[in-house]
Amino acid sequence: MRHIVKAALAAAMLALPAAAEPAPGGPLTIERQGSFFIGGREVKADALSTLPAYAPSGTITVDQVYVRYQVPAAATGRPLVLVHGCCLTGKTWETTPDGRMGWDEYFLRRGHPTYVVDQAWRGRSAASPVGINRVRSGKAPPDELPTVFSAGHEPAWAIFRFGAEYPQVFPGMLFPLEAQEEFWKQMVPDWLNSLPTPNPTVPALADLAQRLGGAVLVSHSQSGIYPFQAAALNRAGIAGIVSIEPGACPAATGDMAPYKGLPILVLWGDYVDLSPRWAPRLKGCRDFAAAANAAGGQVENAVLPEMGIKGNSHMLMQDRNSLEVADWLAGWLARKVGPKG
Amino acid sequence: MRHIVKAALAAAMLALPAAAEPAPGGPLTIERQGSFFIGGREVKADALSTLPAYAPSGTITVDQVYVRYQVPAAATGRPLVLVHGCCLTGKTWETTPDGRMGWDEYFLRRGHPTYVVDQAWRGRSAASPVGINRVRSGKAPPDELPTVFSAGHEPAWAIFRFGAEYPQVFPGMLFPLEAQEEFWKQMVPDWLNSLPTPNPTVPALADLAQRLGGAVLVSHSQSGIYPFQAAALNRAGIAGIVSIEPGACPAATGDMAPYKGLPILVLWGDYVDLSPRWAPRLKGCRDFAAAANAAGGQVENAVLPEMGIKGNSHMLMQDRNSLEVADWLAGWLARKVGPKG
Repeated sequence: MRHIVKAALAAAMLALPAAAEPAPGGPLTIERQGSFFIGGREVKADALSTLPAYAPSGTITVDQVYVRYQVPAAATGRPLVLVHGCCLTGKTWETTPDGRMGWDEYFLRRGHPTYVVDQAWRGRSAASPVGINRVRSGKAPPDELPTVFSAGHEPAWAIFRFGAEYPQVFPGMLFPLEAQEEFWKQMVPDWLNSLPTPNPTVPALADLAQRLGGAVLVSHSQSGIYPFQAAALNRAGIAGIVSIEPGACPAATGDMAPYKGLPILVLWGDYVDLSPRWAPRLKGCRDFAAAANAAGGQVENAVLPEMGIKGNSHMLMQDRNSLEVADWLAGWLARKVGPKG
Repeated sequence: MRHIVKAALAAAMLALPAAAEPAPGGPLTIERQGSFFIGGREVKADALSTLPAYAPSGTITVDQVYVRYQVPAAATGRPLVLVHGCCLTGKTWETTPDGRMGWDEYFLRRGHPTYVVDQAWRGRSAASPVGINRVRSGKAPPDELPTVFSAGHEPAWAIFRFGAEYPQVFPGMLFPLEAQEEFWKQMVPDWLNSLPTPNPTVPALADLAQRLGGAVLVSHSQSGIYPFQAAALNRAGIAGIVSIEPGACPAATGDMAPYKGLPILVLWGDYVDLSPRWAPRLKGCRDFAAAANAAGGQVENAVLPEMGIKGNSHMLMQDRNSLEVADWLAGWLARKVGPKG
């Protein structure tokens, strides 16, 4: 409880300056915007429905990835493809739970076209109900049901590093807990474990980057590994990788050729050493960076508190200092990836 | 086949002028944009997951409705809340399958703030995996699995009135069939039949309209009835209703008091009389309009071909003449609902 009270006080103090400042930039002028899908394949099935009004047999399209984009009036930076993590959707990058500007708009205002995706089988990217309806209609046994899960608020608390365990709060932690309910509404069921490896999102990201003529793939958590897997598939369109608190980096014992010469940032928040889940992942990414750099790589692990930016949770794109972190990241992009091609 | 060839020729001729014209308006200036949720409730469950890495017990939040909005720099019209139909998401209103501007942006350019939602349990609005995992973990029998279905391409063809049956095409039909694959990618599983009546989207729409201080609820197909149900719950924020090809209008024998004095448009495309599914629905809406208007209502059924606008499918917001239809609708809004409050 002492931690909760201390954190609440710290949060209240930190909230004041942010609340007193206007949203950056005023009205926004964009060159163009829209949405589309990338990837996807047709599947014929006999268990699309158990309702009389909808036929059980037919063709559906799955594995496509929904993409919403905005291009600023005077783009100066590389397009950023923003990929969310476990149990979430592209909403991750939009308005924060407490109503502040999301990275999708902030990086746009800083000159980067932004492309926000929903992973395959998540959000606006279709899943298939066939595995459910085959069991319901007696065509398959219950143990053939898809593996689909939701992260409960209580176990998710430690995963997102709001505190060591629910409902404790790390001292000085900057996630806007007063808007916690709005964050829980972002969470959706996750079908990852019913999908092949690599996830269908991975080739879609490689294709999207190529279509954009050079993009930076920005991933988070569960999707942290996807840009690396995409680079191994096809590096043609990948101008850089930003992997935010990845669930895993590539194994240090693996082939480092796909990463040679590619600007790669692995970005970490605070309290990582206090988390039995996250500390080994940081260590794994340090091992990867050492191996990649020995083979001509340009991989950096940046740990925010080591640079004086303290208090970030796993959801650092939504923390109270999310735009400060974005500013640091924009600087890295300018230095290491450079202006648009 | 003759119909297919004729339609393809007609479509090709109609496509030429549209393709030769620039997108309306050039760069776009918006006052503000973002996303949030409305509604939602917490549920405690013991079957969130069957994976060791994620606990089965905990709390999740469901029934919330995802809302993405944009407000133009000089808003002159009422906010429009755009609600998609069966097996689709808010993507319905965004970029068309063949890459033209969606109604979300077009109405914005015409001065209306636009609010695009995903229905509860659809897209970025969370479903629950509990009904699946209770069966998978042996806590419930297969007949307790949720009712979730996908519409196959073949049966959907007639429902969307691309033709009488797959793959026939109505003569002069204006849906951009050359981009059909992109449209199929918009379709997602539909949990409607696992949800209570009214759908949790309905109170969320009433709340959203009230929060906006007077909005027009624009629904389509499956969601066609929702604005009427929302008005019956709470009319305070509802400035008007546009129901596009609703699956049902309110019963003509019901209480007409919720609709008295409210500007209501029920909008229909072409070929309705040729469709055994849609013809009775138009008749039902004509009966409703007669009953409502006898009780002080302002309900109009507008059938586009009767006004000289021919060739529209059920997806009229994506047809080749979608902006012509939007212009007509913008005129109706200006005449009947009036400028912003």
